[in-house]
Amino acid sequence: MKAFQDYYPDELAHCFGCGRLNEQGHHLRSFWVGETAEARFTPEPFHIAIPGWVNGGLITSLIDCHGTGMAAAAAYRAEGREMDTLPPHRFVTASLRVDYLRPTPLGPELVLRGHVRSVTGRKVVVEVTLSVGEEVTARGEVVAVEMPNSMRTSSAP
Amino acid sequence: MKAFQDYYPDELAHCFGCGRLNEQGHHLRSFWVGETAEARFTPEPFHIAIPGWVNGGLITSLIDCHGTGMAAAAAYRAEGREMDTLPPHRFVTASLRVDYLRPTPLGPELVLRGHVRSVTGRKVVVEVTLSVGEEVTARGEVVAVEMPNSMRTSSAP
Repeated sequence: MKAFQDYYPDELAHCFGCGRLNEQGHHLRSFWVGETAEARFTPEPFHIAIPGWVNGGLITSLIDCHGTGMAAAAAYRAEGREMDTLPPHRFVTASLRVDYLRPTPLGPELVLRGHVRSVTGRKVVVEVTLSVGEEVTARGEVVAVEMPNSMRTSSAP
Repeated sequence: MKAFQDYYPDELAHCFGCGRLNEQGHHLRSFWVGETAEARFTPEPFHIAIPGWVNGGLITSLIDCHGTGMAAAAAYRAEGREMDTLPPHRFVTASLRVDYLRPTPLGPELVLRGHVRSVTGRKVVVEVTLSVGEEVTARGEVVAVEMPNSMRTSSAP
């Protein structure tokens, strides 16, 4: 099954968190499960905060990439078209907030679940939880905006 | 010169973002420059969002680790003692918020500058900016709390 991120155009698929073309990246992959967007990720032993617990930077990175992926998927849905149709949607993060509710144990698979709060023009707001088993350990909100043309490759510094 | 993170006890110095004992980590190192806490970091080519621009997850990870490092340093200062005295301070993140003001170009050194907003009991709130040259590209707020005993190694899952 293709993930949201599999629909990113090749030239925009290098993200460290979720780009399929980034060899050193995390390769996060997100899918619809009904109205929920879901992704699963098992951290590496070095994704550590302190022994036994997952690094908060990784947690936020996963929430961020899941959020922007969901934003694109939600934008296609709002337009009533499939993700393999043109033009492609590709969102970037305007802001995010993450609450670390409790330490996240290092070892088990992490499950991200996201819900779309709003789709307004070029802006999509989503809520994402990160869970281990039945326990939600972090909760985030991502405000994503359609990638501005100024970020396209031809404009890169 | 020793960084804030160099004072973390060995058993708490494995953080992916700033732990000196994490071989795969980013090894962020933070210092006082007067009342400002400063850290510098040059991303790797794979720390990419889309070609030409730095990954937002990395940006937040740097802000996060700089924030918790600053929190520890501020706690020592508030107590009027040096960072090599006992007991050691080690903070974790309760919540953070990051605004990505503009895309951050990939290549140049990034400079993090932090200011302490408040130190109250076990909680420290800091503000951090991330700059490239003279331009601030991201701004964050980190609410850090002294690491609870439940996160100590002996309690890890």
